[in-house]
Amino acid sequence: MARVTVLGAGFMGSALATVAAHRGHEVRLWGTWLDDAIVDAIHHAGEHPRLRIRLPGRIAVFRCDEIAGALDDAEVVLNGVTSEGTLPVLARAWSLIPLCTPVVSVSKGFLADQDGRITRISEAVAAAAQRTIGRQLRWVHVGGPSKALELARGVPTAVVYASHDQEALAECVRLMQTEHYFITPSADLAGVETCSALKNAYAIASGICDGLTLAGRCHEMHNAKAALFTQAIREMCVLVRLMGGDPLTAYDLAGAGDLLVTAVAGRNRRFGEMVGLGVPAAQVAATLAATNELTEGYPAIRTSWDLVGQLADDGRIQTDHFPLLRALHAITYEGADALALLNVLPEVMAATADSQLSVHPAGRGGGAY
Amino acid sequence: MARVTVLGAGFMGSALATVAAHRGHEVRLWGTWLDDAIVDAIHHAGEHPRLRIRLPGRIAVFRCDEIAGALDDAEVVLNGVTSEGTLPVLARAWSLIPLCTPVVSVSKGFLADQDGRITRISEAVAAAAQRTIGRQLRWVHVGGPSKALELARGVPTAVVYASHDQEALAECVRLMQTEHYFITPSADLAGVETCSALKNAYAIASGICDGLTLAGRCHEMHNAKAALFTQAIREMCVLVRLMGGDPLTAYDLAGAGDLLVTAVAGRNRRFGEMVGLGVPAAQVAATLAATNELTEGYPAIRTSWDLVGQLADDGRIQTDHFPLLRALHAITYEGADALALLNVLPEVMAATADSQLSVHPAGRGGGAY
Repeated sequence: MARVTVLGAGFMGSALATVAAHRGHEVRLWGTWLDDAIVDAIHHAGEHPRLRIRLPGRIAVFRCDEIAGALDDAEVVLNGVTSEGTLPVLARAWSLIPLCTPVVSVSKGFLADQDGRITRISEAVAAAAQRTIGRQLRWVHVGGPSKALELARGVPTAVVYASHDQEALAECVRLMQTEHYFITPSADLAGVETCSALKNAYAIASGICDGLTLAGRCHEMHNAKAALFTQAIREMCVLVRLMGGDPLTAYDLAGAGDLLVTAVAGRNRRFGEMVGLGVPAAQVAATLAATNELTEGYPAIRTSWDLVGQLADDGRIQTDHFPLLRALHAITYEGADALALLNVLPEVMAATADSQLSVHPAGRGGGAY
Repeated sequence: MARVTVLGAGFMGSALATVAAHRGHEVRLWGTWLDDAIVDAIHHAGEHPRLRIRLPGRIAVFRCDEIAGALDDAEVVLNGVTSEGTLPVLARAWSLIPLCTPVVSVSKGFLADQDGRITRISEAVAAAAQRTIGRQLRWVHVGGPSKALELARGVPTAVVYASHDQEALAECVRLMQTEHYFITPSADLAGVETCSALKNAYAIASGICDGLTLAGRCHEMHNAKAALFTQAIREMCVLVRLMGGDPLTAYDLAGAGDLLVTAVAGRNRRFGEMVGLGVPAAQVAATLAATNELTEGYPAIRTSWDLVGQLADDGRIQTDHFPLLRALHAITYEGADALALLNVLPEVMAATADSQLSVHPAGRGGGAY
């Protein structure tokens, strides 16, 4: 049994707390300044107001101003806040996280650094840690398909824990694995983290297709959705490589697996569906935010496209190689019609066909990259 | 404009006929001995009774006994019959297919040869052609996500045409590509064909999960379905390599893409759902067959598992490497409970974790293979 502290009492933080409690740990669930109402509801009714489940008794719940008590002697810290909340939360937690305690983080996204350059969260955290406390956290990133509600219910779930710190990795796998929660360790932190950020952006494509169908502008289009899914994996694969990761990571749990679960179910898909129905993306985001339905995919499209622009400026890639991401950005940030998504296919396929026929006589089944 | 003959007037043959007609070709749609009622209905009502669409006027429809007229001077032949129907149909068509006319085939599955060994369809056709007409057909296999109804409706669709005959391949791509039907050529016939056969088998896993949920035996389980989807791609990847194909083919349109469309929608998913609800697989297959709802995934599980056994007998693989296929076979052919599917995850993940922690310190995000 270990003392486990969870930062963030929203969907994912609370779900992770139930996994840790199920594993037999002493769990302290700390709510951020946005979570006071959740914490109060748990104290009052015993049930998490958004997960709608009763939390196991061995989870102690802490309000925002009780962070010191929540982190006291923590042996593992689980970061369950959003990508945008991670640095603000760590700003309060740096000095309270015991030396050598590993931090397991489920935050998915890219962040802009002080110069506006897009970085992976672990890079942003490393830079901030160096500035603030003059040392590094032992960081473990979690990727792979894991919807919070299903985690909390004990649905079989397979995730990837990725870190450069192999000892912290092995320790966290040992402490968190249960008979429902299967962990694959990976040293490909760059690849897993990049996939985690990108999948939220690409999953929106599937929702947009559903919206176009609901709007009566297109037939049902499983064929097109599967083709766009494949193209998303291709583009993720290129970006993973450029970010220093292993391209194969994009084909496994953290890439294809997490993209699938996000494209089929959840808030990012619903966001896309409303965009496909013709509602401007900013308005959809505002509507969902008003009911606490955070859509990480919307900002992820912007940061991912900024990343592509940055890599292009650095001369490392051509933006032409990302027609799907470009279309998603055009639709959600530049006012393009949702039908623009379907124009991706002829472009991609023409390029792939050319390369297959002329360049690669022994070419493989698709994939220009 | 070319003279295009389609063999098989069922869902897929008729859908391909509409694509060819839309491309401007003179199309002759021939119904097998199983399709007389369909052909009569088209003649009578002008509408295809199963696709429920009116076929374009430039499609001439031929009854089974009119095969000679249907194939007369054909410049391209499209084979739209099932894997099990392919050799019986070719037995009537061998001598009627003009010399050098390429055959584009959408049949997906494995076949047992005269000695009971499992082979790819193109291999079975090649052996039969050599025996019967003493020469080879110019064979092009079609893979990738393409539901027939969506093809017929002009939904954007991206497929892979694979062949060892590069000239036939280029000619067929040129003749069939339309503004809705995008074709990627590939020289990886073995890989694309293997994926086409396997995806019908693996798609059933997703349906079984849905059935378990509907039966009230499990919660909704998107997490588990995504993990099993990833495992399916891993196992497909190994088999593609063993069959002489490019493992990357399993990650692209013919593999992940076609698996996705099959797992999310269609008859194989529904077959799995009924099995997950507790109906014995043989009974489900009989029920669906009675309404002409052919489920190719059910026999594909058997032939795929036979293939694994054959490769194991040849000393090329251990059956341990295919826990998902083994579970599917146990559930659908050996009376195992559908819940056995979920036991695949701990087994796979434990093996992967061991290999990642101990063998591959620079391991990637999942994937023991």
